[in-house]
Amino acid sequence: MKKDIEIAREAQIKDIDEIAHFLNIEKYEKYGNYKAKIDLSYSENQNKDSKLVLVTAISPTPYGEGKTTMNIALSMGLNKLGKKAISALREPSLGPSFGIKGGACGAGYSQVIPMEDINLHFTGDFHAITSAVNLVAAMIDNHIYQGNEKNIDLSNILWKRCVDLNDRALREVVVGLGKKTNGIARQDGYDITVATEMMAVFCLSNNLNDFREKVSRMIVAYDYDNNPVTVDDIKATGPVVVLMKDALKPNLVQTLENTPAIIHGGPFANIAHGCNSIIATKTALALSEYTVTEAGFGADLGAEKFYDIKCRKASIKPNITVIVASVRALKYHGGVSLEDINCENLEGLKSGFKNLKVHLENLKKFSNNVVVAINKFDQDTKAELSLLKELVNNLGIEAFECDVYHKGSEGCLDICKYIIEKSNKDNDFKLLYDESLSIKEKIDVICKEIYRANGVKYAKKALDEIERIENLNSDKLPVCIAKTQYSFSDDPKNLNPESEYEITINDIRLNQGAGFIVAITQNIMTMPGLGKKPAAYEIDIDENGNIVGLF
Amino acid sequence: MKKDIEIAREAQIKDIDEIAHFLNIEKYEKYGNYKAKIDLSYSENQNKDSKLVLVTAISPTPYGEGKTTMNIALSMGLNKLGKKAISALREPSLGPSFGIKGGACGAGYSQVIPMEDINLHFTGDFHAITSAVNLVAAMIDNHIYQGNEKNIDLSNILWKRCVDLNDRALREVVVGLGKKTNGIARQDGYDITVATEMMAVFCLSNNLNDFREKVSRMIVAYDYDNNPVTVDDIKATGPVVVLMKDALKPNLVQTLENTPAIIHGGPFANIAHGCNSIIATKTALALSEYTVTEAGFGADLGAEKFYDIKCRKASIKPNITVIVASVRALKYHGGVSLEDINCENLEGLKSGFKNLKVHLENLKKFSNNVVVAINKFDQDTKAELSLLKELVNNLGIEAFECDVYHKGSEGCLDICKYIIEKSNKDNDFKLLYDESLSIKEKIDVICKEIYRANGVKYAKKALDEIERIENLNSDKLPVCIAKTQYSFSDDPKNLNPESEYEITINDIRLNQGAGFIVAITQNIMTMPGLGKKPAAYEIDIDENGNIVGLF
Repeated sequence: MKKDIEIAREAQIKDIDEIAHFLNIEKYEKYGNYKAKIDLSYSENQNKDSKLVLVTAISPTPYGEGKTTMNIALSMGLNKLGKKAISALREPSLGPSFGIKGGACGAGYSQVIPMEDINLHFTGDFHAITSAVNLVAAMIDNHIYQGNEKNIDLSNILWKRCVDLNDRALREVVVGLGKKTNGIARQDGYDITVATEMMAVFCLSNNLNDFREKVSRMIVAYDYDNNPVTVDDIKATGPVVVLMKDALKPNLVQTLENTPAIIHGGPFANIAHGCNSIIATKTALALSEYTVTEAGFGADLGAEKFYDIKCRKASIKPNITVIVASVRALKYHGGVSLEDINCENLEGLKSGFKNLKVHLENLKKFSNNVVVAINKFDQDTKAELSLLKELVNNLGIEAFECDVYHKGSEGCLDICKYIIEKSNKDNDFKLLYDESLSIKEKIDVICKEIYRANGVKYAKKALDEIERIENLNSDKLPVCIAKTQYSFSDDPKNLNPESEYEITINDIRLNQGAGFIVAITQNIMTMPGLGKKPAAYEIDIDENGNIVGLF
Repeated sequence: MKKDIEIAREAQIKDIDEIAHFLNIEKYEKYGNYKAKIDLSYSENQNKDSKLVLVTAISPTPYGEGKTTMNIALSMGLNKLGKKAISALREPSLGPSFGIKGGACGAGYSQVIPMEDINLHFTGDFHAITSAVNLVAAMIDNHIYQGNEKNIDLSNILWKRCVDLNDRALREVVVGLGKKTNGIARQDGYDITVATEMMAVFCLSNNLNDFREKVSRMIVAYDYDNNPVTVDDIKATGPVVVLMKDALKPNLVQTLENTPAIIHGGPFANIAHGCNSIIATKTALALSEYTVTEAGFGADLGAEKFYDIKCRKASIKPNITVIVASVRALKYHGGVSLEDINCENLEGLKSGFKNLKVHLENLKKFSNNVVVAINKFDQDTKAELSLLKELVNNLGIEAFECDVYHKGSEGCLDICKYIIEKSNKDNDFKLLYDESLSIKEKIDVICKEIYRANGVKYAKKALDEIERIENLNSDKLPVCIAKTQYSFSDDPKNLNPESEYEITINDIRLNQGAGFIVAITQNIMTMPGLGKKPAAYEIDIDENGNIVGLF
């Protein structure tokens, strides 16, 4: 089998004008020959017959389950079956590209291209976000330096600077040192761009005005009387909107089979909701019959947030949810060691199936329209694949073997036919909770119904913050729980969803701009570091002008 | 008279395909409808008949002399006279756009468009530079954290992080605080992106391979044995080249009269050489008959560095130099107060002419082909304009009144005819000094011949650094003196070039990548701050979707 990058370079890539023409769009701007930004107006068009397909996955393992690859393949498969489909994905962050090997553009014969561009600067969206976040920070420090009219409490500034790189040295810094004219010294820190509230706001805005509104109410600090100070209070709304006006336009690219792909936005899936932008999804829905989208991490985090945060904010409903699983990954969940993972192990698979089972039970709380895509690997045995299908079928759910890595669309036509059939049924989708519940009630529902905890404990800090948010009357917002993606519990090492555990909420944050309340179970890394041998060491341009080492 | 932005919005802007077609180029990529990146291959084509016109100015005053406006107008005037001309300019930095009012795209009927884009993210070049600089920083800190194999001296790290914003709080910071896993704590600081050596390297590279070579040898730190540690030593060359490969392609836009403009690169004119990129200038030379380019600040800094650094590195020669002066600015140099500046004052003008006179004498040391463009303002009287022309003519040099603000190309046809005539004469251009001279000899030549100092003094720090550079055998490079732009001397308040003074060199820095040695006369601000009422307060998008406040 050829390498991903070789397959990508051999693809018959079409000029992006052709892809735009296929979608009947005229208002777009090219960024090079293979990328375009689609005018914002399309996202406001409604197409009631358009279907939304969510692709989610079991809890992640060291293998990668192939969620993005499956998403891309399904969009290609639907197209092959004569349906106009679009893959709606997240943009990759530059940081991990130089940290850990592996891009975010799919694999094998199911990729989006041009992958070099998508994995690097793309159309500059994340740079715009980085600039906007850092401009707000500069304006906060300048506000304080010029007299601190808003009485900002120096020890209570929530806003951090950001960079779209893995840089551990920036996690905790002190700024404003040196001469008096260098400003006021204070503790500060950097997040990676994708972990900022600006990114979440970007992704949860329905249009430019909604974006402006959300930006204006982001809380940057509290004053000495404990009142929130917003982006608008420091007069930064206008310049942020100006910096972001082009970034808000969704990006059009294509798959290896020339299916349109809209790649736009990419927030963290723990402290944020982990989905591509609402504007992109609505644009895809307006321009196609089927929009295939995804959510970060496993279904406990990704799908729940996709439904309860993104769908709620966008007033959209998925027609069907596809959950991706692999034999290998389930065996890992079943306790099979890394050395033995490529040997047939039916007991291990059966034990690991518990992970998929709980996800399936969870997904059914939102809608009965759920199907399993088994992402086939070369080492999977017939017995294992049969067993997995049988276990799924026993729950009254269909499962399809998919070989999308080797075959692209041809590897997933059966499940695509099923998706088409089921998407045309009545939509029974419902949200998990009412946002008018109290913060603790909302957290309780998610922890018990989705994470399967026996109860929820709160640290004092979290309780204090809940009180503050209630006093601000900002508690009627959906909850975004920041929890490990590796376990249903808050212990990444606990791979048994049938064990007994409580979830501990250590901190609470109000993201008043994005419009959700973050409940933090543990220290969530919002600025990764580079490893001993970062991927950057291998990245270069070869004598033929080709990028090497990025993938 | 209409506002600049109104004039710009009323312009008949052409699709960038038409501008590219006019230049007979096929290899370019569109960035939206009005911007394009030109393939790097054109810069390697030689066109021996192509003429290079440098536009420089008298020492800057609070008024702005209109150097960029004149540059744009001259390119339009040359086109109007049937010559294929390109304006080759610097890209503006995002920082000042949100700090001080006023863009960098010309004025009146002599502007480059689309000015909103050019003044904001443009094609992302500066974002690429910012990412590259910060990736190197992250790799330095990671190198130290992972064991410090190269023995980097923590107290001798030269590399700073950067952001393309005005943010005084970042001038002096401490990074790596907090837990052990946050890296090693150390003092650090941020420069604005345009002040980085990466920007200078970007602008002084002749092609991608030359860029790689220059990047690889940039010094990031010294080790505990006082040996330099380079970008290559920490294995960051490849990823920097990959991040910068698209940024290196010059950007094509147009003037209000649809003349092609190539806007690319924008280093500081004090600690760096202050010119657009060599690649852009060479591309313009390859594609046109006349390339009209510029250099930062007055001729003492800008023109000298353009000649002795840029032209030397690029092996190009200007055919003629245009120096821009205005009656108002010269009166300011003559000591006329701001309140009286709009009243006729022949004595003040005569006194202030000394500034122009010294610049003219200096320019003649490089070539006799020098001409004065008088940028007319409404308040200038006939007597003042006549006197100024007479004073210039007395030196055997021609001066032309130009009304480019109100009339665009029509306001400068006479000087354009003169430029055409003189550019076709033999080129007597020569550099000021041989780079094989010692560092002190080179500094001496510039300070005495150009700055008109009686002598040069050195601080001990500077002498120590000269010794270190000589020991590294890196002293055979041109010198870039960082000096105030307001005076020929190193005292910004001294507006009399005929006074007696010495120049003090307080520090020396080796920019081994860019290939020049910086001699620092005083503390040069490499990170501006925001003012009491930053321009950002007024910047927004209005109800019609138009940007307001940016200009």
